[in-house]
Amino acid sequence: MNRLLCVALLACAACLAQTPDDAKPASTNVANAQYPRIHSDLSVTFQLKAPDARKVQVQVVGDKYDMTRAEDGTWSVTIPPQVPGFHYYTLIIDGVQVVDPASETFYGSFWESSGIEIPNNAEDFYQIKDVPHGEIRQFRYYSTVAQTWRRAFIYTPPDYDTNLKARYPVFLLLHGGGEDERGWFIQGKTDIIMDNLIAEKKAVPMIVVIDNMYAQKPGENSPMTMPVVTPGSVLRITVPPTYGEVVMKDLLPALDKHYRTLTDRDHRAIAGLSMGAAYAMQVGMSNLAAFSYFGSFSGTVMRDLNIETSYGGVFKNAAEFNKKCHLLFIAAGTAEQSRMDAANHARGELAKVGVKFVPFDSNGTAHEWLTWRRDLHQFAPLLFRN
Amino acid sequence: MNRLLCVALLACAACLAQTPDDAKPASTNVANAQYPRIHSDLSVTFQLKAPDARKVQVQVVGDKYDMTRAEDGTWSVTIPPQVPGFHYYTLIIDGVQVVDPASETFYGSFWESSGIEIPNNAEDFYQIKDVPHGEIRQFRYYSTVAQTWRRAFIYTPPDYDTNLKARYPVFLLLHGGGEDERGWFIQGKTDIIMDNLIAEKKAVPMIVVIDNMYAQKPGENSPMTMPVVTPGSVLRITVPPTYGEVVMKDLLPALDKHYRTLTDRDHRAIAGLSMGAAYAMQVGMSNLAAFSYFGSFSGTVMRDLNIETSYGGVFKNAAEFNKKCHLLFIAAGTAEQSRMDAANHARGELAKVGVKFVPFDSNGTAHEWLTWRRDLHQFAPLLFRN
Repeated sequence: MNRLLCVALLACAACLAQTPDDAKPASTNVANAQYPRIHSDLSVTFQLKAPDARKVQVQVVGDKYDMTRAEDGTWSVTIPPQVPGFHYYTLIIDGVQVVDPASETFYGSFWESSGIEIPNNAEDFYQIKDVPHGEIRQFRYYSTVAQTWRRAFIYTPPDYDTNLKARYPVFLLLHGGGEDERGWFIQGKTDIIMDNLIAEKKAVPMIVVIDNMYAQKPGENSPMTMPVVTPGSVLRITVPPTYGEVVMKDLLPALDKHYRTLTDRDHRAIAGLSMGAAYAMQVGMSNLAAFSYFGSFSGTVMRDLNIETSYGGVFKNAAEFNKKCHLLFIAAGTAEQSRMDAANHARGELAKVGVKFVPFDSNGTAHEWLTWRRDLHQFAPLLFRN
Repeated sequence: MNRLLCVALLACAACLAQTPDDAKPASTNVANAQYPRIHSDLSVTFQLKAPDARKVQVQVVGDKYDMTRAEDGTWSVTIPPQVPGFHYYTLIIDGVQVVDPASETFYGSFWESSGIEIPNNAEDFYQIKDVPHGEIRQFRYYSTVAQTWRRAFIYTPPDYDTNLKARYPVFLLLHGGGEDERGWFIQGKTDIIMDNLIAEKKAVPMIVVIDNMYAQKPGENSPMTMPVVTPGSVLRITVPPTYGEVVMKDLLPALDKHYRTLTDRDHRAIAGLSMGAAYAMQVGMSNLAAFSYFGSFSGTVMRDLNIETSYGGVFKNAAEFNKKCHLLFIAAGTAEQSRMDAANHARGELAKVGVKFVPFDSNGTAHEWLTWRRDLHQFAPLLFRN
């Protein structure tokens, strides 16, 4: 009897652990890859064939999960339901952090990481729809400052090639630390978000410039480092001046030459995510003659906002700033506490002196791409309305 | 004395095995990655920190090399000088084939592989130069055949946005088995090759359409399989008809609507590499009313060329075919014997009946991207001269 009960219990456990039938391969898998599979409750099953490995884990954002070895050498684990949107993840095989061979790769943290798109039943603003589509164009420009060819991706709106007399406002959009110009193109789904907004007439047709904010002059140290926060210390983001020079001396002139841009400050916006927020604020506020719309998405830099000293004291005269600045947009996700604290600090300081800004809180999302997709979706409609 | 000799020999061996000072990180590394490093003799040192791994190998194309563990858990190996050009490679960590975390990733064999660009001192046709640059544009089109949105990358020549009255010929360029529309964009360096050719006036300005040849109708089996060759068997490439329908019913109409194309057969070319050669020949020869220039780059399909039966017997009447076909280009690398044999078989059969063709042999290169970059560099100048 004991033995039978034991068998029954084992069978039941196996049943509970079984992959539900409704699971589907993630849209971020490479062709033919059946795993990772996402269940209807948004739990995810990962699987890897690794007969000779001694330990395999999957790490999704900050959480590590041990995978279990089956007799045939297949390792798997089902992890709890995930927040919708895009998450970077990796495998750890015998201690080495590597990309899941089943995943498309996405450039972040200065390497090509695995990533998984968790379906979002509540929002479809970044789903491709039957609307006119713009293009994303690879644009090569020579930087006299960095003395090298650089690459940007340029979103042109759907009517760009038919409305040939039109000139368009320009929105410069920056990636996060460890990412590059591919971030807003691939992870960010910029073209789909903009196509949908423009089709609904929620945003005006504009050119979105997705550039790489890392730039160095010959002999300069590489700016490509991830900030390290040691316990008890405070992260300070510093923005080297070179990229601002590239923007003003190389990028904007090249854009204005190659594309049908509007070239005055009333038709130029700049925003960035995370470390890109620091760059966007630094470049934007240092060049008020060139930009009039500003966005900080999940910017840690907001924690350091100081009315007296930030950006040469630009916020001190609120009336003057409000006249010059058509939009100051300060966003963070409610599940990224330090960035939300930073945003709230900046909002509080600005409110005290009467500087106008538009806050946006992305509900339930962390320091991740759904936060930034939502930021873009909220920010773009506010642009070029003056 | 024995002992001293032994130490001296060891020191000498260590000296020989030492990384020469002239080694540089590969251009295909991610930011900050110091390995793999390429030496002046084109030997390559790979390195990976993996203290807990028991066995680490690097596989470059078909060759596996054991890496050696240092005391600190760093594994490394220096492999013999490599042929210039682009090679896919992977690491094998305790039996699991994975991407080198130090490498950019490149979609091939239906996954995101590591890749390494070996410098080429003999040729610079795929190096970026100070010439006018065209764009590569992401183009989304809806396929009524496959009932899904599809993506192509479109190369537009440098004058496309200024020479607004001009219309351009169209060259449809297909990837290999296991690759996708990113192949010719990234690994192929199509825009740089075309920019350089156009700047030298060696090729006429044209639109190059880099599409994904995999297409399936709802309910159809996926065409995304790699052909398996068992010992003693002969590889037969079959091309399912769906992609040809997509080209004729969806892609060409969408291109002609969205871009300033020339739409007659005299201004349309089609070519592909490896399995893409089979697709290009099948789609092109089945639609002689739409295409008049044809290219097979490293096509295994050429081995099956039969004057009587291939493509409905299109080669049987050589005079008629020669009149219709402005170019039949048959290329292979001299270091890919089976494809060279295939090319030579086809050339022989065609010559027997008087069908005109242009052969090109890529000297010293295998079934790899330098072969195909050279093919493009040879093929494009021959286009649209009639």
